[in-house]
Amino acid sequence: MPDALASLSMQALLNEILDEVRPLIGQGKVADYIPALASVVPDQLGIAVYGNDGQVHVAGDARTPFSIQSISKVFSLVQAIGHSGESIWQRLGHEPSGQPFNSLVQLEFERGKPRNPFINAGALVICDINQSRYAAPALSMRDFVRRLSGNPEVTVDNHVAESEYQHRARNAAAAYLMQSFGNFHNEVEAVLRSYFSCCALRMSCVDLARAFGFLANEGFCQHSGEQVLSPRQTKQINAIMATSGLYDEAGNFAYRVGLPGKSGVGGGIVAVVPGQFSVCVWSPELNAAGNSLAGIKALELLSERIGWSVF
Amino acid sequence: MPDALASLSMQALLNEILDEVRPLIGQGKVADYIPALASVVPDQLGIAVYGNDGQVHVAGDARTPFSIQSISKVFSLVQAIGHSGESIWQRLGHEPSGQPFNSLVQLEFERGKPRNPFINAGALVICDINQSRYAAPALSMRDFVRRLSGNPEVTVDNHVAESEYQHRARNAAAAYLMQSFGNFHNEVEAVLRSYFSCCALRMSCVDLARAFGFLANEGFCQHSGEQVLSPRQTKQINAIMATSGLYDEAGNFAYRVGLPGKSGVGGGIVAVVPGQFSVCVWSPELNAAGNSLAGIKALELLSERIGWSVF
Amino acid sequence: MPDALASLSMQALLNEILDEVRPLIGQGKVADYIPALASVVPDQLGIAVYGNDGQVHVAGDARTPFSIQSISKVFSLVQAIGHSGESIWQRLGHEPSGQPFNSLVQLEFERGKPRNPFINAGALVICDINQSRYAAPALSMRDFVRRLSGNPEVTVDNHVAESEYQHRARNAAAAYLMQSFGNFHNEVEAVLRSYFSCCALRMSCVDLARAFGFLANEGFCQHSGEQVLSPRQTKQINAIMATSGLYDEAGNFAYRVGLPGKSGVGGGIVAVVPGQFSVCVWSPELNAAGNSLAGIKALELLSERIGWSVF
Amino acid sequence: MPDALASLSMQALLNEILDEVRPLIGQGKVADYIPALASVVPDQLGIAVYGNDGQVHVAGDARTPFSIQSISKVFSLVQAIGHSGESIWQRLGHEPSGQPFNSLVQLEFERGKPRNPFINAGALVICDINQSRYAAPALSMRDFVRRLSGNPEVTVDNHVAESEYQHRARNAAAAYLMQSFGNFHNEVEAVLRSYFSCCALRMSCVDLARAFGFLANEGFCQHSGEQVLSPRQTKQINAIMATSGLYDEAGNFAYRVGLPGKSGVGGGIVAVVPGQFSVCVWSPELNAAGNSLAGIKALELLSERIGWSVF
Repeated sequence: MPDALASLSMQALLNEILDEVRPLIGQGKVADYIPALASVVPDQLGIAVYGNDGQVHVAGDARTPFSIQSISKVFSLVQAIGHSGESIWQRLGHEPSGQPFNSLVQLEFERGKPRNPFINAGALVICDINQSRYAAPALSMRDFVRRLSGNPEVTVDNHVAESEYQHRARNAAAAYLMQSFGNFHNEVEAVLRSYFSCCALRMSCVDLARAFGFLANEGFCQHSGEQVLSPRQTKQINAIMATSGLYDEAGNFAYRVGLPGKSGVGGGIVAVVPGQFSVCVWSPELNAAGNSLAGIKALELLSERIGWSVF
Repeated sequence: MPDALASLSMQALLNEILDEVRPLIGQGKVADYIPALASVVPDQLGIAVYGNDGQVHVAGDARTPFSIQSISKVFSLVQAIGHSGESIWQRLGHEPSGQPFNSLVQLEFERGKPRNPFINAGALVICDINQSRYAAPALSMRDFVRRLSGNPEVTVDNHVAESEYQHRARNAAAAYLMQSFGNFHNEVEAVLRSYFSCCALRMSCVDLARAFGFLANEGFCQHSGEQVLSPRQTKQINAIMATSGLYDEAGNFAYRVGLPGKSGVGGGIVAVVPGQFSVCVWSPELNAAGNSLAGIKALELLSERIGWSVF
Repeated sequence: MPDALASLSMQALLNEILDEVRPLIGQGKVADYIPALASVVPDQLGIAVYGNDGQVHVAGDARTPFSIQSISKVFSLVQAIGHSGESIWQRLGHEPSGQPFNSLVQLEFERGKPRNPFINAGALVICDINQSRYAAPALSMRDFVRRLSGNPEVTVDNHVAESEYQHRARNAAAAYLMQSFGNFHNEVEAVLRSYFSCCALRMSCVDLARAFGFLANEGFCQHSGEQVLSPRQTKQINAIMATSGLYDEAGNFAYRVGLPGKSGVGGGIVAVVPGQFSVCVWSPELNAAGNSLAGIKALELLSERIGWSVF
Repeated sequence: MPDALASLSMQALLNEILDEVRPLIGQGKVADYIPALASVVPDQLGIAVYGNDGQVHVAGDARTPFSIQSISKVFSLVQAIGHSGESIWQRLGHEPSGQPFNSLVQLEFERGKPRNPFINAGALVICDINQSRYAAPALSMRDFVRRLSGNPEVTVDNHVAESEYQHRARNAAAAYLMQSFGNFHNEVEAVLRSYFSCCALRMSCVDLARAFGFLANEGFCQHSGEQVLSPRQTKQINAIMATSGLYDEAGNFAYRVGLPGKSGVGGGIVAVVPGQFSVCVWSPELNAAGNSLAGIKALELLSERIGWSVF
């Protein structure tokens, strides 16, 4: 269809979908394990779609920054693959876990080797790898994300990072458990600091949709002109998101939405339509699995109506 | 590209790929948990590609029947969804398991509700559902598969079925454990008999590629003219295969091949390229995860060279 | 103290203790997993103490037969050690389990070798060993128990045995799981039948106190004149009861009572005071761990007031 | 028998037993998880028996100090019960664990409440309780142990404590995991320091036999004249040692030796004969369960020959 019409339709569709999912607000629960997240205004809702043609379509609170939390795990992984390639798979797997994101049971049975980079233990190993590489890992990440999103004002919310650190017990347990198996090389406390800084990045739906654009575009970030990953590596990242990107609900997300995606407890979800679009939806209230309740529904409607599922 | 040329290329490509993977033969291990499977000639290798245009391309031992084993779990699931729809998800999930295919640990912790229909426990629940529906479930399945494959001579290898039954201990344990949680409604022994009959179907690569054709074609089986599933249900089946179709190696298969697929310990693997092709590769020797060693490599090469990954 | 006085005191003490624990009746819950057990009159309470001098002291409903259930596991174990000696420990352990009595998790991790003979899986292995030895294991057991108790009218309640068999799912799962690891040698169904027959023996407190007398008397059953076990084997049985005899409450029983003991979901508990007494208390209502609520309290008071703890 | 003769016999018996078990040296393995322990001379062997009459009998290297390691868990527990009584059981249990001493699996399933005070997690909770009570917990412990043993020269080996701290990963993981469930109240690092200091106490067999004397003597330490615990509390400590004192070999120790006991990876084992003796044996080489190989055998022989088993 003609581009202008397509743009019009997309805009109308996004508005329509937000209207449809808005009634879900009030049925979920904002993340409250740290005070800094618990205080977010719950009835916010936004969406942004970024096409490989460079166009952005938005609806709702698409330009309001929020805490990206676990969505940062994708950026950390991309950094690690960028400088260390396939060698990282000696330290962790790329299999779905079938366990809550912060469980230590599987980690102990599998002798300190996390199942994938999107459970906390796996993300900590990735941060440990990046810690060995960068003098200031959190700054490197921030600058990387600024380039990917084209927004030089992306910043870390230090208040959130500090609050996460104060509540670090479960992540510290995972890190020390891996250290006890020889799968952690830097000081646990230092890596935790870096990890929480990455999680505490504040970005909007527009920022995130743009920053994930290269994953829909064979690894090429068109606004920065950077070939971030090879086409093959890009497919691999998408594959890992498809099997492990939504905590213990990855299967359900594949079943309902059919797209590679990654969620965070801040209420953001990013999804990739390979060869076409990246999309970010945000609404702070979560379902029982820790994913944005309205966000998943919005992506499901979007996938159904445009036929976006990869399957 | 012109169809004739495409056919030519596909044929050449399949030959080329089999030549490349053939050296892997000798490095895997034929399934030997029952004598009837252990006696298969190990150095067989075949592939068949079935297009939505009805064309079949084959190479190697593509017309030799083999024991489909767990590939039958897809047919059982399709039957169950066909007659019972979404209601089946009250009895099992569609999340990856993160555990070996026959582990009872997760099943006990999750109170008898299997993670997905492609681990043994989940397939047994599906068979239990079908047992409640059909007077002769194994015959219904055989006839269903004959229609899907267009081959009226597909049969159950009763010798294999009986041998599986004699070695039913682990599956019986899973069934009784589910029964103890109220999630098994028929006689365990009867369901096990049906289950093993379905696993013991003998089909060739060509049979299986044709039988899976509807999953690449929005649920429509063109040689039988049957709308087997709705387009939406079709995507859902593909999604479950993508996250859970290769035992505890589903993540790796997504990473390397990027297609929905289902494997069996007979050495067959079927994959789906939505909107285009279904493909079946067969080689009896398995890797440590129980998947055909040469088969996975062949699909990886195919995916790379044609750019088939959905990601 | 003089024997007559001692007898008098013991009698008074038993009456006193039953009066003290009677108010607990109504606070527990009768076993209801099978109808045949659920229908027991809940407010029954009895105790019998059998001395190495042959004297029996009783109070309350001490002569009312009840379903001995897991107390039978001691008799099965004694039979197995009697004919097979130390060799049985190749098939199971004698370590506490730290798991509910019917969990399969540990059994799978430890590859089908149960932790001890008093969890269900371990008792099933013992029954499997006895099945290989006796033509009619349930009859052999019944006759053995008749001799030990000196009561030729001890019988199996076939109604209970049949009801248990109808609800065999969890035990069947355990047996088949062990079979899958090669640790089960007879037909699962036949062993389950024997197992449930042993559990369904009906005995009174007096019967059980007398039947356990040899464990307080260096293996010698004085009323039958039989040396049932060697003194060393007797200590070993008592040791296993002390660490594993009360389901997942063995540690608490040692802490509060300090005696080797074995409980059943029929509400009976037998304890051994090495060198002096065997005692059986019965009250059908159970605590959360599946042990007689009033029974544990009665033994605790008895242990405190006579200083019976082995510790 | 007359005391003089008894003394003579005991002395002869100890010598005889050490001679019998000495050939086991070379078949075990010295703890090597920290360099400071790995360097111990492996062929040392000593035993000391301390009677309630105040007499000490020794053989072999009974006066050589060694690292008491987990034996210190008994002292910590006694301190905690001393000042906090039964209230400590809100924070941990007294059930055997059925898991390796440092497993986190059970700890996660049971939501951060350790099974008993003799697995590492439980001992850490006890140290956390003591940390809340004492300004300088490690010094309080050292002084307590000096009083109990009557040896004012008992000291902490700071080299060992520091080395343990450097290898704290697994214990740190357990502590943080408990903190994540709200069951850890002080700074993890500070408690770990105290914990390792207690483990690093150096004591001889004579020191330990004397220090455990009160557990054989209804809570009364006769050389210090201190009533350390009530008689009832004393039985309770002995009960916990009997069900959980030897890592994942408590059941086997009860089966073979039949005494409450506690072992350490330094190769020491202390056992209690209630009402009569306390005994400590030491030999640095361990079996697969982490207990002194020669030590267990020596206690087994001693128990058999004197009939010391409580069962």
